[in-house]
Amino acid sequence: MTKIFAYAIREDEKPFLKEWEDAHKDVEVEYTDKLLTPETAALAKGADGVVVYQQLDYTAETLQALADNGITKMSLRNVGVDNIDMAKAKELGFQITNVPVYSPDAIAEHAAIQAARILRQDKRMDEKVARHDLRWAPTIGREVRDQVVGVVGTGHIGQVFMKIMEGFGAKVIAYDIFKNPELEKKGYYVDSLDDLYKQADVISLHVPDVPANVHMINDKSIAEMKQDVVIVNVSRGPLVDTDAIIRGLDSGKVFGYVMDVYEGEVGVFNEDWEGKEFPDARLADLIARPNVLVTPHTAFYTTHAVRNMVVKAFDNNLELVEGKEAETPVKVEG
Amino acid sequence: MTKIFAYAIREDEKPFLKEWEDAHKDVEVEYTDKLLTPETAALAKGADGVVVYQQLDYTAETLQALADNGITKMSLRNVGVDNIDMAKAKELGFQITNVPVYSPDAIAEHAAIQAARILRQDKRMDEKVARHDLRWAPTIGREVRDQVVGVVGTGHIGQVFMKIMEGFGAKVIAYDIFKNPELEKKGYYVDSLDDLYKQADVISLHVPDVPANVHMINDKSIAEMKQDVVIVNVSRGPLVDTDAIIRGLDSGKVFGYVMDVYEGEVGVFNEDWEGKEFPDARLADLIARPNVLVTPHTAFYTTHAVRNMVVKAFDNNLELVEGKEAETPVKVEG
Ligand SMILES: NC(=O)c1ccc[n+]([C@@H]2O[C@H](COP(=O)([O-])OP(=O)(O)OC[C@H]3O[C@@H](n4cnc5c(N)ncnc54)[C@H](O)[C@@H]3O)[C@@H](O)[C@H]2O)c1
Ligand SMILES: NC(=O)c1ccc[n+]([C@@H]2O[C@H](COP(=O)([O-])OP(=O)(O)OC[C@H]3O[C@@H](n4cnc5c(N)ncnc54)[C@H](O)[C@@H]3O)[C@@H](O)[C@H]2O)c1
Repeated sequence: MTKIFAYAIREDEKPFLKEWEDAHKDVEVEYTDKLLTPETAALAKGADGVVVYQQLDYTAETLQALADNGITKMSLRNVGVDNIDMAKAKELGFQITNVPVYSPDAIAEHAAIQAARILRQDKRMDEKVARHDLRWAPTIGREVRDQVVGVVGTGHIGQVFMKIMEGFGAKVIAYDIFKNPELEKKGYYVDSLDDLYKQADVISLHVPDVPANVHMINDKSIAEMKQDVVIVNVSRGPLVDTDAIIRGLDSGKVFGYVMDVYEGEVGVFNEDWEGKEFPDARLADLIARPNVLVTPHTAFYTTHAVRNMVVKAFDNNLELVEGKEAETPVKVEG
Repeated sequence: MTKIFAYAIREDEKPFLKEWEDAHKDVEVEYTDKLLTPETAALAKGADGVVVYQQLDYTAETLQALADNGITKMSLRNVGVDNIDMAKAKELGFQITNVPVYSPDAIAEHAAIQAARILRQDKRMDEKVARHDLRWAPTIGREVRDQVVGVVGTGHIGQVFMKIMEGFGAKVIAYDIFKNPELEKKGYYVDSLDDLYKQADVISLHVPDVPANVHMINDKSIAEMKQDVVIVNVSRGPLVDTDAIIRGLDSGKVFGYVMDVYEGEVGVFNEDWEGKEFPDARLADLIARPNVLVTPHTAFYTTHAVRNMVVKAFDNNLELVEGKEAETPVKVEG
């Protein structure tokens, strides 16, 4: 019987693992909550493929250990493949898959909800209510429908975000270095980022973290923006110069900031810092501000996304194991 | 020169008062932050009409005092007229206007944002982040697009709420005792409230507080609902049996509750209770729960709504003063 072994399975993944198992009675599924390392590779012995997800590196040793146990078919439950030693993977004849798109809506919804909360001054009102101050004033909201929403990057996530904002009745404008013909026909695009900065009340980034985009939000771009602008970054930390944002918040030019990603997030997010000090003092400052909403890279973290990550990774792995073409293979090249 | 005097003007109303003044240079506008009482009525002496907004009763004495100062044209900046002594108003020949619709979007947006936050377990995540616990699990979100959203009451506010939820990609169903032909053609309506309760993951009330609707959400209706239902009340407190909601939350049947209105809110909301005890202990309990979002009847409280309340009341009052038909007159009958 075909057997697939899965590493680092979390509690929230188990219902979807069970769902996949139930739909594939002819496949034996085993799993552990341990990460894949040279030591744990032997747990998968006898399996035809492995399903994995970890920030930890897939080193030459780890890959060798898997191969020594007869396994060269590896399916990631996430997107990123930077932490795989590709030269070694190629040498050992690995076949690898990932899940490039699991739920654009998870991220777009989070961006929309958080932006709306900033406009509404919800954090201030929530803090008042928590201490039993039930007075309205001066915590007045701005309606989403009254805003010009500027979307930078109209890919998978940006497009869903646009639809949500239009549901609220907002005016949506967009900028992308590659214009989507459908969206262009509908007249969403402005000619330049500068135009977008000048017109938008809410600016949301949905672009990749390529070198050209690093610190695209900086003192100069903020200077071009409207008074009381709301800035949303649920994409990648390096897109935003954090010091410039803090200056913008301090001067009162920036009305609020939504931050799901952070320049210094690796090794900081998804950890418990209670009673400890952050390596970067700015983070505590941002978290404490009434007009900043910080989440630790959880925009993706929905039942829909997690289900897709599990189900698609197992589907991919079964395809590899059965010698078929996997739906989303990763290029293995040294 | 025509003169209008306004009572109980708040800070957040002043920009819109100024806007109206600038657009009506031929009208003299004066105002106070004081409420309208038999004592303050004389402040308006010499004015042709007054613009008002207060929870305080417009008693026979107050109306008489206004009439004694030559004023019988009164424009409310809000909807409710229950606190006006109508018999006296009729006797004195008062003409009265109100602002029945100032911003359905303000309330609909609030309902949508708060419902989305409950689905996302945002309050739990925010509390973790505030104490510097940046771990994701187990605070996983449900996406709005995956929900069946049941809208009870498809009037001004319900319809806007439906549009917002559809922007997220949710499936929307609705119930109303009077079906809107447009919505009926589009197939939104289910046949009964029971059907709606059985199918909906999110249930949002947008109906008036008439006797037939009091405690429409109770133990029996909650029993009919789906496991993990989210209930939203931004309409009127008496629609919901608070004890039944608390039982539903305690049993785990109700995933979360959005509460902008409350059975016992009069004299409690829009007051500062810091360091004091609420008259009703349930309120502190609800505020403290991680899956309940309480706001003190602030769903309406946006710049858009406040602007409309001010501008429409002044427009109405000027129409009365100029002997024209006011846009939204109130029937004055004893
Ligand atoms: N917070 C999270 O949990 C989370 C999860 C997944 C993805 N993301 C991030 O979201 C972002 C968008 O993801 P996606 O799936 O929509 O990507 P995508 O590739 O579908 O779309 C990106 C778009 O950005 C455009 N673009 C690139 N550089 C640009 C620039 N300088 N100006 C304007 N447009 C530019 C591209 O042409 C493309 O249309 C990425 O940064 C991704 O890493 C975040
Ligand atoms: N929280 C706030 O700040 C705030 C502000 C304004 C209004 N409100 C409240 O919002 C609610 C909706 O206001 P609106 O302007 O949309 O009202 P509306 O009159 O436009 O619509 C109400 C709808 O409810 C329907 N209805 C009445 N009883 C029903 C029942 N038992 N079942 C199904 N449908 C029923 C009516 O037919 C009507 O279509 C009201 O209760 C109002 O008091 C709250």
